[in-house]
Amino acid sequence: MSSVRELMRSHVSVRSFSEEPIAPETLLSIIEAGQSASTSSHVQAYSVVRVTDPAKRQAISEAAGGQKWVVSAPEFLVYCADLRRLNYACTKAGMGELEGLTEHSVAAAVDVALFAQNVLLAAESEGLGGVFIGGIRNAPDVVIGQLELPEFVFPLFGMCLGTPKERNATKPRLPLEAVLHTDSYDSEKIQPLVDGYDEVMAAYYADRGVAGTNWSESVSKALQLKRREHMREMLNDSGFFRS
Amino acid sequence: MSSVRELMRSHVSVRSFSEEPIAPETLLSIIEAGQSASTSSHVQAYSVVRVTDPAKRQAISEAAGGQKWVVSAPEFLVYCADLRRLNYACTKAGMGELEGLTEHSVAAAVDVALFAQNVLLAAESEGLGGVFIGGIRNAPDVVIGQLELPEFVFPLFGMCLGTPKERNATKPRLPLEAVLHTDSYDSEKIQPLVDGYDEVMAAYYADRGVAGTNWSESVSKALQLKRREHMREMLNDSGFFRS
Repeated sequence: MSSVRELMRSHVSVRSFSEEPIAPETLLSIIEAGQSASTSSHVQAYSVVRVTDPAKRQAISEAAGGQKWVVSAPEFLVYCADLRRLNYACTKAGMGELEGLTEHSVAAAVDVALFAQNVLLAAESEGLGGVFIGGIRNAPDVVIGQLELPEFVFPLFGMCLGTPKERNATKPRLPLEAVLHTDSYDSEKIQPLVDGYDEVMAAYYADRGVAGTNWSESVSKALQLKRREHMREMLNDSGFFRS
Repeated sequence: MSSVRELMRSHVSVRSFSEEPIAPETLLSIIEAGQSASTSSHVQAYSVVRVTDPAKRQAISEAAGGQKWVVSAPEFLVYCADLRRLNYACTKAGMGELEGLTEHSVAAAVDVALFAQNVLLAAESEGLGGVFIGGIRNAPDVVIGQLELPEFVFPLFGMCLGTPKERNATKPRLPLEAVLHTDSYDSEKIQPLVDGYDEVMAAYYADRGVAGTNWSESVSKALQLKRREHMREMLNDSGFFRS
């Protein structure tokens, strides 16, 4: 069963797909495998919208910053935090409606991601590949409109899936010791470990023709350019993180 | 490779462990496999604190509502959203400090969960078992104090790991059609599908000696009792969801 760890270690984001469709039974089977992931108090606070309509794909692709694989991938899924079913359950059980609490919103976001990671890994175990599309958070309102998402449903990220046409090499991660602490958080090790990792990633980028950058420069640009300051208001509008 | 889907489908939360320790190389290997999960713009916004100190385990167990497996499990890990390394990276790259934006906080929460799901599944592939401990969100301040988590690091959930002594049967999930929509969200199907699932879960609970309840009652109680209204303020204090 160490093949599972090997499968994880071989993960790369795939954005280039052959035209071969994913068999419907395969798609359903991997989504169902995703549902077996852990979920907070069994709430299963997620939904996924399979987008087949080319016009919707096009609109979402543009909203996500022109990511053309959103249009061309054999499958494109939008993963949503979903408290709507739970709001119905609460009303049905006479426990009152949900109020957009931060706790429930955090639990839902975690639930969605646990589910989605299982789906991607199940897909990869079938020889498929894919990529998460956080870019839909550039314009959640567009995604909400295109997919007619009601209150208590918020699109957190998309996922393209298909048979890989090209595969990149795996990307080096932070050294294990940078993310693993024992008994207390050790702030002192951040600087030396990030500085060392910057050198590793500078070499990785240089090998790919991008000279003169490193991890710190790359992620700080990503964070400061993808500020998405609309996120709080749009989440609030959808019934999340209200209080 | 369909064994991966089978492994996912066999997932159950494990709270009862043999005393056998997890070999250190196994633990490190499964955490490292977790790091191969996708991460938003390669930011890897997570850290995990391995808690070995019995006094810290005891304090966190109590904070989590008296979950004694937090003390007794061979391993107990606390998964944190971590923007601290990234704040260093931003400063180093001259891009300015992070400001606790909702977007970065959401991206971090998703990153943590993708990572953690890989870790649990890698553990399960080695014959180990475990359970997520959302209960640490009962009192994040206790966890922050015990583990000396600095600003920009917030404990989202724990995870007990070990060799299962007892295993429950798998728990039925919502029917696939309840979580999967095509091209637009279909609110109409919530009521009939939840009502049907309530019957499935009522039978499941009755088989286990808990009569007269169903999914809607169970999850609405969980949600309305675990409101954790401190979450927004404590996240804000730690540098998350500030704006």
